[in-house]
Amino acid sequence: MQNIPDYIAQHKQRFLNELIALLKIPSISADPAFSKDVLNTAKAVKTALETAGCDLVEIHETAGYPIVYGEKIINTKLPTVLVYGHYDVQPPDPLDLWNSPPFEPVIQKTELHPEGAIFARGACDDKGQMYMHVKAMELMVNTHQLPCNVKFMVEGEEEVGSNNLAIYVAENKEKLANDIILISDTGMIANDVPSITTGLRGLSYVEVEVTGPNRDLHSGLYGGAVANPINILTKMIASLHDEDNHITVPGFYDKVEELSTEERAEMAKAPFSLAAYQKALDIEAVYGEKGYSTNERNSIRPTLDVNGIWGGYTGEGAKTVIASKAYAKISMRLVPNQDWEEITELFKTHFESIAPKGVTVRVTPHHGGQGYVTPIDTIGYKAASKAFETTFGKKPIPQRSGGSIPIVSLFEQELGSKTILMGFGLDSDAIHSPNEHFGVWNYLKGIETIPYFYQYFTEMNKG
Amino acid sequence: MQNIPDYIAQHKQRFLNELIALLKIPSISADPAFSKDVLNTAKAVKTALETAGCDLVEIHETAGYPIVYGEKIINTKLPTVLVYGHYDVQPPDPLDLWNSPPFEPVIQKTELHPEGAIFARGACDDKGQMYMHVKAMELMVNTHQLPCNVKFMVEGEEEVGSNNLAIYVAENKEKLANDIILISDTGMIANDVPSITTGLRGLSYVEVEVTGPNRDLHSGLYGGAVANPINILTKMIASLHDEDNHITVPGFYDKVEELSTEERAEMAKAPFSLAAYQKALDIEAVYGEKGYSTNERNSIRPTLDVNGIWGGYTGEGAKTVIASKAYAKISMRLVPNQDWEEITELFKTHFESIAPKGVTVRVTPHHGGQGYVTPIDTIGYKAASKAFETTFGKKPIPQRSGGSIPIVSLFEQELGSKTILMGFGLDSDAIHSPNEHFGVWNYLKGIETIPYFYQYFTEMNKG
Repeated sequence: MQNIPDYIAQHKQRFLNELIALLKIPSISADPAFSKDVLNTAKAVKTALETAGCDLVEIHETAGYPIVYGEKIINTKLPTVLVYGHYDVQPPDPLDLWNSPPFEPVIQKTELHPEGAIFARGACDDKGQMYMHVKAMELMVNTHQLPCNVKFMVEGEEEVGSNNLAIYVAENKEKLANDIILISDTGMIANDVPSITTGLRGLSYVEVEVTGPNRDLHSGLYGGAVANPINILTKMIASLHDEDNHITVPGFYDKVEELSTEERAEMAKAPFSLAAYQKALDIEAVYGEKGYSTNERNSIRPTLDVNGIWGGYTGEGAKTVIASKAYAKISMRLVPNQDWEEITELFKTHFESIAPKGVTVRVTPHHGGQGYVTPIDTIGYKAASKAFETTFGKKPIPQRSGGSIPIVSLFEQELGSKTILMGFGLDSDAIHSPNEHFGVWNYLKGIETIPYFYQYFTEMNKG
Repeated sequence: MQNIPDYIAQHKQRFLNELIALLKIPSISADPAFSKDVLNTAKAVKTALETAGCDLVEIHETAGYPIVYGEKIINTKLPTVLVYGHYDVQPPDPLDLWNSPPFEPVIQKTELHPEGAIFARGACDDKGQMYMHVKAMELMVNTHQLPCNVKFMVEGEEEVGSNNLAIYVAENKEKLANDIILISDTGMIANDVPSITTGLRGLSYVEVEVTGPNRDLHSGLYGGAVANPINILTKMIASLHDEDNHITVPGFYDKVEELSTEERAEMAKAPFSLAAYQKALDIEAVYGEKGYSTNERNSIRPTLDVNGIWGGYTGEGAKTVIASKAYAKISMRLVPNQDWEEITELFKTHFESIAPKGVTVRVTPHHGGQGYVTPIDTIGYKAASKAFETTFGKKPIPQRSGGSIPIVSLFEQELGSKTILMGFGLDSDAIHSPNEHFGVWNYLKGIETIPYFYQYFTEMNKG
C-alpha cells in the first residue's frame, strides 16, 4: 500500500483533535445520570463514520443505548470485514486519584510513551482503539486503497454487559454478514513486543445481599447476640477460596480446559519480569492460585474477585451500629469451556447454601459471557500477524488475555465468523483505573497497521 | 414529696414542646457539616438549665464541642448530685428507612407505647432522657422540694468518644465534686418491668485499611494474579472469630471476668422471650458465642463487630475493578477488667500480623473506654431502687447492659464517685437506628421518678 505514513503524518494533529473531542463526552453507561452524554456520543460516532466514507450509517435504538451501524460495500464479491467497538466508558471513580479530570483529555509523556499519551477515561478502552479503525478507513478511502467491504458496529453498553447488542446481533444476521470480525479492545505486550490476543476469559458478574435484623441496631445492645450481616458476608466471601486459593464453589472447575505441559512451556516464553510487575504495582509479592505462574493465573485460570463491598456506617467518624444489610459485587473470570450461565447458577446455589441461620441471602446475576479462543492457523490470524510484522518489523506473539469481551463468542455463534483481536494498548495504560491513557504512538501505529490487515486478508481470501 | 403528678399533668404539654424544639436541631457530632447545629444545641441546653433554676450556667469551650455546666448549690452541708448527659446525637442514616424525617419530631402510638412516642433522632439517646433531669429539677425548684445540691454536666461528643470531656473532668475535679453521679442514657426491661443498669461494657473502636496494588486495576487483566484488598480484608475479618464465635485475637479473653453459676442463674431470671426477640428483629435465629445465652452474649461477654465496610465499586451497575484499598470500621465491646487500650493494642498487633504478603495493613485506633459495674449495696443504688419502687409500684431488677458509656469509669477514677444509671428508655426504642423514639409515658415517668431519687439519696446520707 502507498502513502500511508505520509497521510498519517499529514493528518496526525486532526486525528488527535478528533479523538480528544470524543473523549470529552462522559459516556458512562453504568450511571443513568450520564444517559444524555452516552446518546450524544452515539451521534458523534455516526458523524465520524459518515465523514470517514461510509455510504450508509444508522443509529439503531435498543432497549438500552443505541448501536451505531455503518457500512461501505464496494463489491459484494469481495470479502467483508466487520469492525466492532464500543463508545461507552467505565465510571471514572475514584476521581481523587486522577492527576487531571477524566473527561478533559491532556497529552503527557510517560516512561513507556516518550512521544506522549492521551490521558482520559476511554482513551484506550475503547474510544481510542475504536477510533483508529474509523481513521484507518478514512485513510484507505481517501487514498483509494480500500480493498474490500467494511461494516462497523459500535455499541454503547460494553461496560455493562452488552445485553442489547446480543439481541441486535441475533436479529440482524444478514445485515451483519461478514468474513471476519476485527476488534481493537485488548492490549499488546509492549511497543517493541507486538502481540495478538488469541484467547479471552469469560465472565460471570453477580451482586450479593446479606440481610440480618430488620433494622440497623445499636452494637452495644445487640452486639454478639445477633448475626452481623457484615461479619457474615466476610465469612461467606472468605470461604470462597481455600488455603491454596482454589475456588471452593462445587463444580466450578469441572469444565476448565487444562493446558498441556507443552502449551504452558510455550506461554512461559513470553517476556515477563516479575520484579518489574511487582514494582509497577508497588506490591511486595504476587498472590494467587497455587501451582500456576502469574501469567497463567491471569489468562488460562478462572478467578473470583470482589469488585465492590459496602455496608454499615462508612462516613466520617465512628458509629456503633450493626447494619441490617451488607452487599458485595463479585465477578468470576472464566476460561474456555466454562459456561457462564452454568457457573452463575453454581455460584448462586453455593452462596445461598452457606448462609448461616439468622441471615437471608440474595444473589442477583448481573451479566456475563463465554470465553473465546482464536486458532492461529486461520487466514484472519495470519493476515493480522503479517500486518503487525509489516509495521512493527517483527512477528507478533499470540497471547491469551485475562480480560473478557463477552460478545465475541456470541458473534461466532450467531454470525458464524471468527474474531481477530488486534490490540494496540498496553496493560500499563490503566484502563478501568484512574489516569487511563493511550500512547499517541500506539494510536497512530494502529491507524497504520489496520489497512495492511485489510490488504492481506483480501489477498489471502483470493488465493 | 407533694404535687408531683399534679405539676406534671399541668405542664405536660410544655414539657413535650420544649423537648421537641430541642430535637429539631440536628446535633450530629460525627459529621463536621453539622457543627453549627451542635453549637446551637449547646446554647439551647444552657438556656434550659437557667430556666429550670440553676444559679450558675456556663458553656465551657473544649478542643471539640463545648460542655454545658450548670449548678444550684442550696447548702454546702447537703449532698451533691452530679447529672451527666449529652446533647449530641448519632448520624441518622440510612435516611430512607425513616418513616418521618429524623429532625422533624412526630408523636405516634406504638404497640409498646399506647400513649404515643416521640419519633426523632436523639428522642431517647440522649436528648429526651437528659431533658427529663432538667424538667425534674424545674419541678423540684418550683415546688420548693429540692432536697440537696445539683450539678449538671452535658457534653456534645458522647457519640464520638467523649475525648474532650475526659480532659475537662480531669481539670475540673473541684468544680465537679459530688456524692453521686446520675445518668439516664440506658434503658429498662419494659414499662411494667423496671430495671436499673448495674454494668456497662467497655469499647474499643478502630478503623482498618488494607492496601494492595498502588491503583485500581482491571479485574480481567490482573484478577487472580494479585492480592485483591477486598478479598483479603474479608479473609482477615472472617478469621477474627472461630467456629464457636470465640474471638481469636491472642490475649483477648485473658482478663475477662467469669461470672459464677449463681450469678448467671440470677441473670437468667430476667424476663426474656427468645421468640419475641427474634420476631421483633425478623430473624430466624440468634447467633453468637457458643455456651452463652442471648442475654449473656450482649451483656457479660465481649464482642467484635464490623460497624462499616467499604471498598471498590459500590455505585450503580457493574465495574470490573480490583480496588487498591479496602476499609472497615470495627468495634469491640469489652467487659469489666478488660482494659480498652490494651485490647486495642492486642487487636492492632494481631490484625497487622495476619496480613498476607502483597498487601499492607493500617489499624487506626478511634476511641474507647472501660467497662463499669455499680455495686447494688450502695446508698446510691438503694435510693434509685426505692425511687423506682415508689413510682412504678415494683422493685426494679438490677441489669447488666451491653452498651458503653466510656466516661463512667473515668468519672469514678477522676472524681471518686459512683454512677447510678437510671434509664427510662426501652431496647425497642431503636436508638442508633432509623425511627428512634421515646415513649411519652416514659419521658413523664422519668420526670416523676427522679425527684424521689434526690429525696431518698439525701435522707439515706443523713442517716
